[in-house]
Amino acid sequence: MSMSMAKNTRACCLLLLRLLALAATVTAAIVMGTSHEITTFFNIKLEAKFQYTPAFVFFLIVNAVGGVYTLLVLFIPRFNNSVSSFIILMDLVVTMFLVSAISAAGAVSQVGKKGNEHAGWLPICGQTPEFCDHVMGALISAFVGVLIYFVLLLHTIYSNIFSPLLT
Amino acid sequence: MSMSMAKNTRACCLLLLRLLALAATVTAAIVMGTSHEITTFFNIKLEAKFQYTPAFVFFLIVNAVGGVYTLLVLFIPRFNNSVSSFIILMDLVVTMFLVSAISAAGAVSQVGKKGNEHAGWLPICGQTPEFCDHVMGALISAFVGVLIYFVLLLHTIYSNIFSPLLT
Repeated sequence: MSMSMAKNTRACCLLLLRLLALAATVTAAIVMGTSHEITTFFNIKLEAKFQYTPAFVFFLIVNAVGGVYTLLVLFIPRFNNSVSSFIILMDLVVTMFLVSAISAAGAVSQVGKKGNEHAGWLPICGQTPEFCDHVMGALISAFVGVLIYFVLLLHTIYSNIFSPLLT
Repeated sequence: MSMSMAKNTRACCLLLLRLLALAATVTAAIVMGTSHEITTFFNIKLEAKFQYTPAFVFFLIVNAVGGVYTLLVLFIPRFNNSVSSFIILMDLVVTMFLVSAISAAGAVSQVGKKGNEHAGWLPICGQTPEFCDHVMGALISAFVGVLIYFVLLLHTIYSNIFSPLLT
């Protein structure tokens, strides 16, 4: 009875983590997708869109696909070892892609914020603060998502090493 | 006898993979560290150094630390479960950091190559082709390293799921 309760509690925690990861990745995708600002700077119209930067497009796609995967995985019954190992593999791949998307978008937004005087790239966040806030918000949200995925991975790895039965 | 031979072959393969990962990450760090080009462009001296870009500095540090870790792990005896699980955790963390470093450096080098007309950032690779080649070489080398780490992670996860004994 106590074993079964512990198992249920764990299953609930894992479900909750997946739901949080879903919320975080979908929020990141939406916040990035709605980042758009038009501003005028000395009579020059300046338009900032996530579509103008490949790293931001990659970020949006990875978070959207990651969110869809997180939703789907909630409904897949783990009836045998093959399904479970496929989910573990996909969890690992999704985590890697999220890390990659956050790093790429983060590196470009660092250039946007600080510029790079040696390359002659001026910072643009002074002119488009709202756009930069959106990008920053999306990065934070995706980071929360990747932290949750990291916890899920650690749980998978350690629960399988210390007790060989699949959960 | 046959079981023991299979085990030895596997241990040899894993050792070889670690050595390849070591070579790849150290090469990536060295190639990035030696990227330096001074050029003149319409009488303006242009100097390209990896130190000028935070993403490239991060890349160098992650690959150097990853290389040192890969070297150290070859000499750590796996005498019990705690050591093995620590190594698995570290493998996962190193892989994440390598993915992060490659993505960040890759995103900035994409801006260096193509520029971003909307932000007014001009491409610089036309002026500093040698520097860009170095960065590209370092990225490819680090990518090989991360692929090997991914294979090592998959091996760890699946060998523990399908046979609970630690290898």
